[in-house]
Amino acid sequence: MTEMPTILLTGFEPFAGERTNPSQEIVRALNGETIAAHRVVGAILPVAFAATLPMLEELLDLHRPALALALGQAGGRSEISLERVAVNLIDARIADNEGLQPIDEAVVDEAPGAYFSTLPIKAIEARLRSLGIPVAPSLSAGSFVCNQVFFTLAHLLATRHVGTRGGFVHVPWLPEQAARHPGQPSMALDTMIAGVRAALECAVATTHDLHVAGGATH
Amino acid sequence: MTEMPTILLTGFEPFAGERTNPSQEIVRALNGETIAAHRVVGAILPVAFAATLPMLEELLDLHRPALALALGQAGGRSEISLERVAVNLIDARIADNEGLQPIDEAVVDEAPGAYFSTLPIKAIEARLRSLGIPVAPSLSAGSFVCNQVFFTLAHLLATRHVGTRGGFVHVPWLPEQAARHPGQPSMALDTMIAGVRAALECAVATTHDLHVAGGATH
Amino acid sequence: MTEMPTILLTGFEPFAGERTNPSQEIVRALNGETIAAHRVVGAILPVAFAATLPMLEELLDLHRPALALALGQAGGRSEISLERVAVNLIDARIADNEGLQPIDEAVVDEAPGAYFSTLPIKAIEARLRSLGIPVAPSLSAGSFVCNQVFFTLAHLLATRHVGTRGGFVHVPWLPEQAARHPGQPSMALDTMIAGVRAALECAVATTHDLHVAGGATH
Amino acid sequence: MTEMPTILLTGFEPFAGERTNPSQEIVRALNGETIAAHRVVGAILPVAFAATLPMLEELLDLHRPALALALGQAGGRSEISLERVAVNLIDARIADNEGLQPIDEAVVDEAPGAYFSTLPIKAIEARLRSLGIPVAPSLSAGSFVCNQVFFTLAHLLATRHVGTRGGFVHVPWLPEQAARHPGQPSMALDTMIAGVRAALECAVATTHDLHVAGGATH
Repeated sequence: MTEMPTILLTGFEPFAGERTNPSQEIVRALNGETIAAHRVVGAILPVAFAATLPMLEELLDLHRPALALALGQAGGRSEISLERVAVNLIDARIADNEGLQPIDEAVVDEAPGAYFSTLPIKAIEARLRSLGIPVAPSLSAGSFVCNQVFFTLAHLLATRHVGTRGGFVHVPWLPEQAARHPGQPSMALDTMIAGVRAALECAVATTHDLHVAGGATH
Repeated sequence: MTEMPTILLTGFEPFAGERTNPSQEIVRALNGETIAAHRVVGAILPVAFAATLPMLEELLDLHRPALALALGQAGGRSEISLERVAVNLIDARIADNEGLQPIDEAVVDEAPGAYFSTLPIKAIEARLRSLGIPVAPSLSAGSFVCNQVFFTLAHLLATRHVGTRGGFVHVPWLPEQAARHPGQPSMALDTMIAGVRAALECAVATTHDLHVAGGATH
Repeated sequence: MTEMPTILLTGFEPFAGERTNPSQEIVRALNGETIAAHRVVGAILPVAFAATLPMLEELLDLHRPALALALGQAGGRSEISLERVAVNLIDARIADNEGLQPIDEAVVDEAPGAYFSTLPIKAIEARLRSLGIPVAPSLSAGSFVCNQVFFTLAHLLATRHVGTRGGFVHVPWLPEQAARHPGQPSMALDTMIAGVRAALECAVATTHDLHVAGGATH
Repeated sequence: MTEMPTILLTGFEPFAGERTNPSQEIVRALNGETIAAHRVVGAILPVAFAATLPMLEELLDLHRPALALALGQAGGRSEISLERVAVNLIDARIADNEGLQPIDEAVVDEAPGAYFSTLPIKAIEARLRSLGIPVAPSLSAGSFVCNQVFFTLAHLLATRHVGTRGGFVHVPWLPEQAARHPGQPSMALDTMIAGVRAALECAVATTHDLHVAGGATH
């Protein structure tokens, strides 16, 4: 009897003075669920530069997932953001939850300047849009812990888990967070959960991304 | 036996190429509900300059509501918008659903330049914020059918139904609408329904608005 | 020998922690200039609710202008804003320069809810756009001192100087101001001066505004 | 007698239906000028994926600049954008001026995923801000011709002109462009020219960037 293949789905604990983090709530909702014949294994990461590499290493070694998706919060964005590019740069605008604030450092010394998501970004975008879920590709995941986790994950997949595809998705604030940030957009948790579930279904099923124009002129 | 007092709650049909209108969905959801010992009477208005005055007159005469709240869609806004000011101006950027596009006309000749909402805007704002629902006051409801309905309603309340309080609330696009408008914010229908219900509860209970600073510097 | 008719052009002193105010700089630049055979008389108003009514009364009585244009700063806007509506409402988000912060008061008791600009907004918009100057009409001048001055001016023109046309224009931050507000737009002083000069030329020459669609759907 | 060292400064011809391109105007203004004891050599690049690599190769071989700065237009941004990251990705949202629209291709096969600007981004940001010029660092130059030029330049500097530092700066629309894009920000040409001149002065003088926090949380 073969075991069901797994999807590793990570989220983050709250940071920057927030009491919650939508990425954490999505992981809690989908943990243990079966999506496209894959079991979802959820994990919550600290917002801490020092902790993420060993945790990701351990999670990948333990679960040997077929697919790995890391989620993070992008307060101020309106849509589910499908990140394409992880850059080898840390430049922390604020301190992490352990008080560290590294400036202009590499995520991984000697690694390339960037990795690209190996998820089918454009197929996922089309799928979510067809389901009525606001979504957009993104060419920058920032230079804070989200980007560090994305880059670290991509580096581990490229160097040590070469059969595993992976990527990063940013989600907006929850309404209860936006209620304390006047003028800012939000998204309901249910919409985010539906979006991440659909993204995972699409990613499992799609090995060649759509060949449609996208990108940004700047 | 006394009848339960009523709240008149109006929404709009879809316009501007949309297939739905969140204001219509909110009205459908709350129609017939009892809120703060008032029965909600819902009505859907056409997006048509010529039709709204007679319809509002008839609705007010028929139901003699204690409170009247008109809802409309504000595509591109992130929050539930509590409108403060109805201006005596129609300037239609697009044609209405009957093809009319009036330019720089009065809503009601000989009426004042503006009416103010008689709902407790700041109390409602505080209530929704405390419930984790994104909300903001607004000083302009535009110059299209939404403003026309707001002004007409306010004029009828000021001149013929002087005991009835009333106002206007704009709501964001639904997620399925924003999915077709890249980069734009949205709000889940459930959040909007909860917000409008809480606004009505607060309006019924609050006869003197909070005395807290608000407004806009420009 | 007849005297040249005058245009009254007012700006504001700095407020909200700024060291300058573009409206003041524009007035200094155009004061004394002859525009469309009218002499520009400039005046700088304090950002103070208590001071503006007597100052405007005195300026209008003294200069008996053919046209009166008040300017103010709208930090965060990208374009020269042609204000259409002055509302009879003061709701001060911040204190004025004398420490006063009135909440939900009328500008003028017993006056109408709003006055409309009597300048040819759409002709001015078309003129500036044709000159390559970013411009937009606006339906709200806020509820702070700018709106108070606009309403007071409109009230004085409507009740005591009925031959004089007048209005209000908001201008963006200067680049040196935006440099201290990350992410915010600005406009060069020269562009603003050219825009206000062209607006005044157009206003003097245009007694009937263009009949073209404008406005806002919300 | 030694020759004066040179700075290579490139801009782009108009694209996307525009009649001008601010980057081209800046290059024309600064071409031949002496900045920090370096002679500025200007060049205008076509907005054409096929043409840029051979042109950059030729320009670098011919002028052997001490510093190379490429400029491009970022319509919709408010500030001078100091780009940090060039990614090895082309994904053209629109066709270039020769009708080519490559999708999801590498800029240079076998090259790393990204290069970083070797200009002192944070020192330049501080310098411009101190001069009152709106400025911001940016982590994405898009995936169109601007990014292709930035990546190509960085690749050539990294592999064949290792003593030459270089980078990319995006500039906003000019006012006359924004006048045709309602709601969009702009910057005067004089402000941009002053900003690029100051950036070049700072870049020549600064070999070690400031160690101050920056970056983006997402």
